[in-house]
Amino acid sequence: MSSHHIVRDEQEPALLIANGEACQPELIGQLLEWSPRVVVLDSAIWRVLELGIKVDVLLGDFDRNLDLDTIRSQQYPLEIIHTPDQNKTDLDKGIEYLIDSGFPAVNIIWATGRRADHSLTNMTNIVRYKNRIRIVMLDDHSKLFPLVGRYEKWYEKGTPISLIPVGTVEGVVTEGLLYNLNDETLTLGYRTSSSNEAADDGFVRVSARSGDLLVMECWD
Amino acid sequence: MSSHHIVRDEQEPALLIANGEACQPELIGQLLEWSPRVVVLDSAIWRVLELGIKVDVLLGDFDRNLDLDTIRSQQYPLEIIHTPDQNKTDLDKGIEYLIDSGFPAVNIIWATGRRADHSLTNMTNIVRYKNRIRIVMLDDHSKLFPLVGRYEKWYEKGTPISLIPVGTVEGVVTEGLLYNLNDETLTLGYRTSSSNEAADDGFVRVSARSGDLLVMECWD
Repeated sequence: MSSHHIVRDEQEPALLIANGEACQPELIGQLLEWSPRVVVLDSAIWRVLELGIKVDVLLGDFDRNLDLDTIRSQQYPLEIIHTPDQNKTDLDKGIEYLIDSGFPAVNIIWATGRRADHSLTNMTNIVRYKNRIRIVMLDDHSKLFPLVGRYEKWYEKGTPISLIPVGTVEGVVTEGLLYNLNDETLTLGYRTSSSNEAADDGFVRVSARSGDLLVMECWD
Repeated sequence: MSSHHIVRDEQEPALLIANGEACQPELIGQLLEWSPRVVVLDSAIWRVLELGIKVDVLLGDFDRNLDLDTIRSQQYPLEIIHTPDQNKTDLDKGIEYLIDSGFPAVNIIWATGRRADHSLTNMTNIVRYKNRIRIVMLDDHSKLFPLVGRYEKWYEKGTPISLIPVGTVEGVVTEGLLYNLNDETLTLGYRTSSSNEAADDGFVRVSARSGDLLVMECWD
């Protein structure tokens, strides 16, 4: 193991597994490669245990009477955190737990698909945490994260990139996209920059003056 | 056939099939029962033809060089509408086509799942048409529609109902929910009423003073 592997757990992104559509095992495998702390939300635990994944933390309101004894017997040690607050989603609680535990970053999977209310809420609620933890949400067709400061990344020409405002985002400026924005306003439901793409091999840059913008890399 | 079945085509909801995750055949079967006008968006046509569904209209920008001759040979008659406008999504164009054709209502399927950018944009863009056509979006776990005026419907106790604002919605008032709202403000990403539910067997009522609210019935 090379020296750069020797880090404290909490410097690696944690892996948060929510209760939406499962992704391909390959994606989980990639994310597990660095042995991240694995946090599973509520009844998703059954599907996760079936996959033989080592879980560190199970978190939820357990309002469906999860059989915690059986779960404990299959997975030891396992930290179980009961979070009954009905004003927050399980995903919110999971992210807040990781912030409180000092994690600088989290990859979130299984947060999209299935119930549309959960999917829509999960994709958009992450903006409220954008200044406290780096969040990337992934599924088999998508990688999305909130814009924080100025975003810059090298892309191959034609890579699909969507900029989706959560509410209204003002002063959006882009470089390197096929349809660039020049100090423009995006408003969810009315004007987004969905299905934009990298104009050339090169850097794409995105910034905004105010509001919450999701940057999304998606593919069919 | 009873007399109330004798209506002009355009008084029934059309069926718009987008290019996201396919739903269970049973859902399509229910929606096809009244022989609605069927509009399919772009390359979704291949998956639709495999199901043996009679398609009336194929609409899209066809930017992936769809083999229209082969499609025509499998489906006759078929109206093919080329909509190259890059400022609108295929779903927008499909809805606008139906508005222009005089349809009062549309059921939309396959608009969620798969690419998160499409899913998020599709679920939220429907609000811009709410005063021109009645829209219901459905998948295997969800039924969602924009609030127009006052909403009232009888539900069984415990039925999950989520109220998700597209941006900010002010003056939300509900009756009959477990967690009622009393002239409150909802803001996407910060405060929604996700995973609410009918408090009892009885009517649920929802109204809002301003903004775009999605009413969502979802199930696991």
